[in-house]
Amino acid sequence: MDLITIKSIFRDKEKYIGKEITVGGWVRSVRDSKTFGFVVLNDGSFFETLQIVYSDSLGNFQEISRLNIGASILVRGQLVGTPGMKQPFEVQAVQIDVEGESAPDYPLQKKRHTLEYLRTISHLRPRTNTFQAVFRVRSLCAYAIHKFFMERDFVYVHTPLITGSDCEGAGEMFRVTTLDAKNAPLDEDGRVDYRQDFFGKETNLTVSGQLNGEAFAMAFRNIYTFGPTFRAENSNTTRHAAEFWMIEPEMAFADLKDDMMLAESMLKYVIRYVMENAPEEMNFFNSFVDKGLIERLNGVLESDFAHVTYTQAVELLEKNNDMFTYKVCWGCDLQTEHERYLTENIFKRPVFVTDYPKEIKAFYMKMNPDNKTVAAMDCLVPGIGEIMGGSQREDNLDRLLARMEELKLNREDYGFYLDLRKYGSARHAGFGLGFERMIMYLTGMSNIRDVIPFPRTVNNCEL
Amino acid sequence: MDLITIKSIFRDKEKYIGKEITVGGWVRSVRDSKTFGFVVLNDGSFFETLQIVYSDSLGNFQEISRLNIGASILVRGQLVGTPGMKQPFEVQAVQIDVEGESAPDYPLQKKRHTLEYLRTISHLRPRTNTFQAVFRVRSLCAYAIHKFFMERDFVYVHTPLITGSDCEGAGEMFRVTTLDAKNAPLDEDGRVDYRQDFFGKETNLTVSGQLNGEAFAMAFRNIYTFGPTFRAENSNTTRHAAEFWMIEPEMAFADLKDDMMLAESMLKYVIRYVMENAPEEMNFFNSFVDKGLIERLNGVLESDFAHVTYTQAVELLEKNNDMFTYKVCWGCDLQTEHERYLTENIFKRPVFVTDYPKEIKAFYMKMNPDNKTVAAMDCLVPGIGEIMGGSQREDNLDRLLARMEELKLNREDYGFYLDLRKYGSARHAGFGLGFERMIMYLTGMSNIRDVIPFPRTVNNCEL
Repeated sequence: MDLITIKSIFRDKEKYIGKEITVGGWVRSVRDSKTFGFVVLNDGSFFETLQIVYSDSLGNFQEISRLNIGASILVRGQLVGTPGMKQPFEVQAVQIDVEGESAPDYPLQKKRHTLEYLRTISHLRPRTNTFQAVFRVRSLCAYAIHKFFMERDFVYVHTPLITGSDCEGAGEMFRVTTLDAKNAPLDEDGRVDYRQDFFGKETNLTVSGQLNGEAFAMAFRNIYTFGPTFRAENSNTTRHAAEFWMIEPEMAFADLKDDMMLAESMLKYVIRYVMENAPEEMNFFNSFVDKGLIERLNGVLESDFAHVTYTQAVELLEKNNDMFTYKVCWGCDLQTEHERYLTENIFKRPVFVTDYPKEIKAFYMKMNPDNKTVAAMDCLVPGIGEIMGGSQREDNLDRLLARMEELKLNREDYGFYLDLRKYGSARHAGFGLGFERMIMYLTGMSNIRDVIPFPRTVNNCEL
Repeated sequence: MDLITIKSIFRDKEKYIGKEITVGGWVRSVRDSKTFGFVVLNDGSFFETLQIVYSDSLGNFQEISRLNIGASILVRGQLVGTPGMKQPFEVQAVQIDVEGESAPDYPLQKKRHTLEYLRTISHLRPRTNTFQAVFRVRSLCAYAIHKFFMERDFVYVHTPLITGSDCEGAGEMFRVTTLDAKNAPLDEDGRVDYRQDFFGKETNLTVSGQLNGEAFAMAFRNIYTFGPTFRAENSNTTRHAAEFWMIEPEMAFADLKDDMMLAESMLKYVIRYVMENAPEEMNFFNSFVDKGLIERLNGVLESDFAHVTYTQAVELLEKNNDMFTYKVCWGCDLQTEHERYLTENIFKRPVFVTDYPKEIKAFYMKMNPDNKTVAAMDCLVPGIGEIMGGSQREDNLDRLLARMEELKLNREDYGFYLDLRKYGSARHAGFGLGFERMIMYLTGMSNIRDVIPFPRTVNNCEL
């Protein structure tokens, strides 16, 4: 259909004022007097709404006046500038056709609904201001990430979601199966016979694409993944979902310093892109969701990120141990309270903490010469703490094998990963960014359920 | 590390010729005489390789000459133009450092390997010419799709992968579970008690994001999904994978004509983007994989797609029934042989077949006034047949309910979907594109296993 979007009217108003246009959208409100009325229309293309004025010269004046919220209509009329009014312009309708009525029990009435309630109608909540803003920002943020990496010639890799390796922490994974749930076939030893399952082995949903991504980095040099990831963790918090999206870049011929430079550029690029391309949405968040949001994001854009080693960070934090619920000491994992104290109080800007004790980091991270710490980094930002984490990877076959031995990892499970160290190994590094964490950071939304279109959490898999 | 990529050298050679540069990459071959040698280097940034000349003035001349294929090195030297030679330039090395050696049993020796063999080493095959080309095209194609939709203000929606609705054809779905595979808990009636499963219900991996996408189209007007999709079909063919990616745009205030216009523009946009941004790769496919490829793709770019109804198409095909293994008659599903005959022999260009019998299409497609056909379309292209399929959706609540009744679908399973027709329904349409199908079409690769980084098929879930 040949409709003008509300976005193009707002962005290009000179072109349309005085012209007859046709728009289509959903009714946010209707108010009428005896001879004329107003419809506030949203068409989903833009955060702002368009005011429609109609009069009893329309044959269906009564029909329009009786429309329920949520009805969809097609409006033909002239776009007229309205200087001095709240709206910069309005449409004086010459024809309004009802495309689809809305039943009177429409769940989104013109009042404030709680986020909890809106979660129960995830198919309708994108029609509200808050979720129009959230999901448009989510879309723009995804694109900004692709654009950032493509401009730098990174190759986008779709790493697999169904994985046959159970070496990534099987306790937290979802099993993927076509076996009969009640009467699974058993083998000679009375164990479930996964040879009869779809893939001929036990399979799970992936928790990270990194190891596969490394294989592609050793071929394409710079790559990134951007896809869904899963955790079967039984934790019902505002920050955990069973299904979420992750971005995992990986660079060959790169060390931890390169990794941090990439992370810092990416974060700034994405913030700038979203602020430039969704100013109305960002103002909405700043006004109604999180008052300090724009100032905080500008702070990130304007600062050079600080760098501190874990060991130095622990020294700094120990001096303030009386502030913390969990006391800090060398060797412990940093909690959010510590991370936020570092970035908000000590450095007053984003900070990379580097060189963590090997015991609290993954087996594949590159051992430092001290043999106690590894070349890992976490990027901490004001407001939330850790937003990205990464490392240089252990590229030396013998050292990797030694570390796997220490941790009692089975080298047969990592054959392909070890091959990458055997055939043309190169220093390489990467990081992971939880996409939803990023959206929460950009919008100020505080529950992960409110930044995922149809969230999946413990005991919740609706629609 | 401060390295110059081979891509920037080729794309911007004036800038680098005569300069000292440092490059890093993997050895494709080494040949040496007594006092000098040549290394062919690939750094993954570009399809072409860079020739390195080195001499015995290097302290490690012997070490370099003994390098195995696949070793990674860092080379410092001057980039020198070589007019009249096969390569436009070469690097005269003043220093070569070995970053990582390659064991002599490196599986990718300098000879032609079969695609079947390469499938057994999916972590190494991206280092070959063929897979460098395939996976770079895959990456560019993904970006072209995002760019196409973003330039048109479509909102990118991440529809869920784990789904609680078993109404999409449960027989072909993977179950997602954390229940004990051997001793699943049972309810009072002796059935598996999914209330104790992670989500409190039986859950599966999605086969399509369309229904969820429609909910977002009724809020944002124009949306698209681009994410993984799953089929537990036990079919071991060159065209089926258990895990693949799909693109599903959905537009509100749009009919079947709008849908076809979008599909045609998208297909042309993506072809043009990939041909412009991967000319070396496309030439490679055209020379070594599929001789008619570029001509065929140019044919698509230059043609206005034809349109024919299913009924007309059947009439045209029936006249040629002696050509076909499966004879055509009204009511039957078109086979690939029929589709190809239509687009290659009858129309000699891409063609949209529209208005299929309702019996062979999904319940949600909009019924035509004849009450026999639905507003569906398949887009057929020379070389493969169907590449995209879509429809206008039934937006009338009563007609949708009537159709669901005919098909004995349980309306309780579709509550949210029916709500979209109850509250501000609007005509809307969309289509689906299998991403791997698109990559096969763009590259001429004939097995889906060769366009997916780590393919998952029946009895195959390696790495």
